[in-house]
Amino acid sequence: MFVLLTLTVCAQAAPPTGETIATQGIPDKGVSACMACHGADGSGIAGSGFPRIAGLPAPHIVRQLQLYAEGKRQHPLMLPIANGLDDAERKAIARYYAAMPVPAASGPAPDEATARVAQNLAMWGDWRDRHLPACGQCHGRDGNGIGDAFPGIAGQHADYLKSQLLAWRDGKRGEDPLGMMASVAAQLTESEIDALATWYAAQPSGPAQAAMDAQLRPAQAVTVSDEEVHGGDMPHHGPVASSPAPDDAGYFQPPPRWSYPAGPLGDAVRLGEEVFERTNTHPESGRFVGNDQTCGNCHIDAGRLANSAPLWAAYVAYPAYRTKNDKVNTYIERIQGCFKYSMNAQASAAGGPPAADSDTIVALEAYSYWLATAAPTGDQLMPGRGYRKLAASEQPPDAERGKQVYAAKCAICHGANGQGVIGTDRETVFPPLWGAGAYNWGAGMHRIKTAAAFIKHNMPLGLGNSLTDQQAWDVALFMNSHERPQDPRFNGTLEETAQRFHASEDSLYGKPGLDGKPLGSNPAKR
Amino acid sequence: MFVLLTLTVCAQAAPPTGETIATQGIPDKGVSACMACHGADGSGIAGSGFPRIAGLPAPHIVRQLQLYAEGKRQHPLMLPIANGLDDAERKAIARYYAAMPVPAASGPAPDEATARVAQNLAMWGDWRDRHLPACGQCHGRDGNGIGDAFPGIAGQHADYLKSQLLAWRDGKRGEDPLGMMASVAAQLTESEIDALATWYAAQPSGPAQAAMDAQLRPAQAVTVSDEEVHGGDMPHHGPVASSPAPDDAGYFQPPPRWSYPAGPLGDAVRLGEEVFERTNTHPESGRFVGNDQTCGNCHIDAGRLANSAPLWAAYVAYPAYRTKNDKVNTYIERIQGCFKYSMNAQASAAGGPPAADSDTIVALEAYSYWLATAAPTGDQLMPGRGYRKLAASEQPPDAERGKQVYAAKCAICHGANGQGVIGTDRETVFPPLWGAGAYNWGAGMHRIKTAAAFIKHNMPLGLGNSLTDQQAWDVALFMNSHERPQDPRFNGTLEETAQRFHASEDSLYGKPGLDGKPLGSNPAKR
Repeated sequence: MFVLLTLTVCAQAAPPTGETIATQGIPDKGVSACMACHGADGSGIAGSGFPRIAGLPAPHIVRQLQLYAEGKRQHPLMLPIANGLDDAERKAIARYYAAMPVPAASGPAPDEATARVAQNLAMWGDWRDRHLPACGQCHGRDGNGIGDAFPGIAGQHADYLKSQLLAWRDGKRGEDPLGMMASVAAQLTESEIDALATWYAAQPSGPAQAAMDAQLRPAQAVTVSDEEVHGGDMPHHGPVASSPAPDDAGYFQPPPRWSYPAGPLGDAVRLGEEVFERTNTHPESGRFVGNDQTCGNCHIDAGRLANSAPLWAAYVAYPAYRTKNDKVNTYIERIQGCFKYSMNAQASAAGGPPAADSDTIVALEAYSYWLATAAPTGDQLMPGRGYRKLAASEQPPDAERGKQVYAAKCAICHGANGQGVIGTDRETVFPPLWGAGAYNWGAGMHRIKTAAAFIKHNMPLGLGNSLTDQQAWDVALFMNSHERPQDPRFNGTLEETAQRFHASEDSLYGKPGLDGKPLGSNPAKR
Repeated sequence: MFVLLTLTVCAQAAPPTGETIATQGIPDKGVSACMACHGADGSGIAGSGFPRIAGLPAPHIVRQLQLYAEGKRQHPLMLPIANGLDDAERKAIARYYAAMPVPAASGPAPDEATARVAQNLAMWGDWRDRHLPACGQCHGRDGNGIGDAFPGIAGQHADYLKSQLLAWRDGKRGEDPLGMMASVAAQLTESEIDALATWYAAQPSGPAQAAMDAQLRPAQAVTVSDEEVHGGDMPHHGPVASSPAPDDAGYFQPPPRWSYPAGPLGDAVRLGEEVFERTNTHPESGRFVGNDQTCGNCHIDAGRLANSAPLWAAYVAYPAYRTKNDKVNTYIERIQGCFKYSMNAQASAAGGPPAADSDTIVALEAYSYWLATAAPTGDQLMPGRGYRKLAASEQPPDAERGKQVYAAKCAICHGANGQGVIGTDRETVFPPLWGAGAYNWGAGMHRIKTAAAFIKHNMPLGLGNSLTDQQAWDVALFMNSHERPQDPRFNGTLEETAQRFHASEDSLYGKPGLDGKPLGSNPAKR
């Protein structure tokens, strides 16, 4: 049997190598040489619509060939080629181009005004007016892609980038995860599309950041299968516009981006913004973070967005009494609380939150202060403060239903195991939702109603308000039914800690998790 | 010789005792018995205009008898009595009544609205509208007097209190230190006078607080003689109205007194107000203060008064960069700086400023935050912030002239040695200006221009703007020509510390003091 099998394989013709296909094609299958359009170095041809493909992740290339073959991507030249290639050939060609060095940036930098438009959208999106996430959120801060699902766009030819944005917008490109790209492209103006295409073409290209999760794999078993994630029973859908509440206009407006104060205060503000977005890896703040969370993970748009716990509303509302620690907290103590709970500082290199006079805290306070410019001191009721509340669901939240929602709507970014996406440089691309990399059992987000409200209005990223209330409740329950780092207020026994700090149906701490064991009894640890 | 002297004394008639005079008078000198009007127990007679004199300080009683005799106080009955008594007799009667137990309060408490009017004036004065200091500032928080110069008024008969306030107002009572009482009384309405008289009459009376300075005497020698203080060459003057700048209206108004927030935040605000006014003795904050200063000593009206470094303007202006420590400071760090410099925390029981999360700091931050209610976050230019600047004087400041100003205008409260007035309970009634009880060489007030500006606009207390600019500069120079606690930034050598932190003609640190020795070379220590 073994021998027979070997003979069978040997009896077939050796499949063409990637290099062969790339340079010569497979003429008798109607496959022309890739290099004819994409170049010998895979750099494509600017101005012709032929993209750079060198250095793209192999699975991404394979998937695109499948999509061309299935008609979900449309191109007169690619259709016969993709159809002509069998699976092994697709993989061979994909490996061949993936291994090539990434060519340099494609085009010249645009003028400054155009660059600023593009940079704003690339780095920050436009949450305030359109709930539009930053391009860099999924394609990497440097635009060079994250893992296999989010390809690099930096240094890609401008005409290709533009054609694809228009294709997303016009429904001519399929398999859009969650309809995200259709939603994004539909909200961009034509001149913004031009600006982004030109600007990204001029950005330095490099290899995609691999998504790393082995080291950070949560203690729990996989709860969502790959099948569920990529082909679950919920229909794929086209563009889903987020629906900001109608009263979104009229909220307090923090100072415009880039309008930092001059001098050392401005330096502190800028540092605060950086720390806010890269808390767990920033040289200043990384040592105080014991998981893979950043401030920006819970405070969308770097703490600017109304109803997403904006910093400007929080800043003027402190000092304030909190039942959580039964004392009046200064704003600094409030921030330290975020480190203690949401960022699990106990497991950090420093072993606890940053000191009140540390550069990290001073910078975060300065950043918050700047965002609150002109806001009235002491106003504890600024519209848009905190998260918008979510009414109770019709049916009690259900973890099994939540699991389905998670697979269809969340896993693509947060991973099948809730492990998130962590770059090779350990930057958090999408935060872990449970396990050692997640917020701990004392964080506000572990409460079902807080999580449900956050999810409903902000998730999937850029598609806020697209889930039903019931879906938000269900998936929040599912998410918070998993183990995570211990509550730092743990006093030695699960029962007493649960009694003292979790005596609410809003917390699952001390109650059975998905595996039946009491949550908190086997807290996640690095 | 010795024997002869003894014989001479014995040859004279024994002088009548205080008790004899009080109960029988000295009929052949036209002196009627004190008890006829002031009662056997010295409690006076309510409704008759005869005051309680039991428990008043003996020197005060002697001085009043002198004033009656000299016609500086006017009363048809007291004139012949005072004239009839010789010096020894005045002292005897004074000792007799001073030793008597202080009677209980004189009258019933007024209604609540009247009490609130009186209590506000007694505890807080009315700085905002009239630059009127609190009665309790000089007469003691409890109204029972401070030392010999400031008699008790608590429990005194209402009709007497009223008659005296009217006498001050109408210029019928002389020897008014700095014209203070004339100025105060002239600014009170008749109904406020009624309210104060009734309210103080109902307050519990007790012995006056002795002014204590032995323990706190500064290292330096006396620089102003008693002669200079009490009979210097500057004319006594009548009422001196303070002259608030014409733009005093229109400043930011902090929330009204007593309108504290509810709940624990309100508790923290109240605690902050207490700590602010009694920083060096308050159970919460006393251990962080290494001298005899309070926050309120430099921030008039408990941090409310515009141009007297009001807290509401400071609160919204932090975080901010400070050259002093070459970093961006949070508001908390700014407060900690006050402890480090103005309150010389290094010499305190705690050995340094309170921690950022201590009750003291949280309370002071909460208090500042409350005072800044509705002030725009980030406004670094609120009108009234800091101290109002003072133009350079025509002549260079001169310590010798400053010494004369000090003797005439300052010493009555701050003492001949700059030692201030410290109560027996160690409460600071008037803060020391130099020596171990004063601010240290790093505090803002050690700078000549800061001190001159503060003095010009705020001193003497309630008589701000009554000194000429030249006098303010001269006395500021004189004040800051004295030793005080070391600059906490002292790096081991006077020269280097002076070079690094005091390279300005605004600081006398490292330069010759009044005794010719370099200031800072013999810093004051407890």
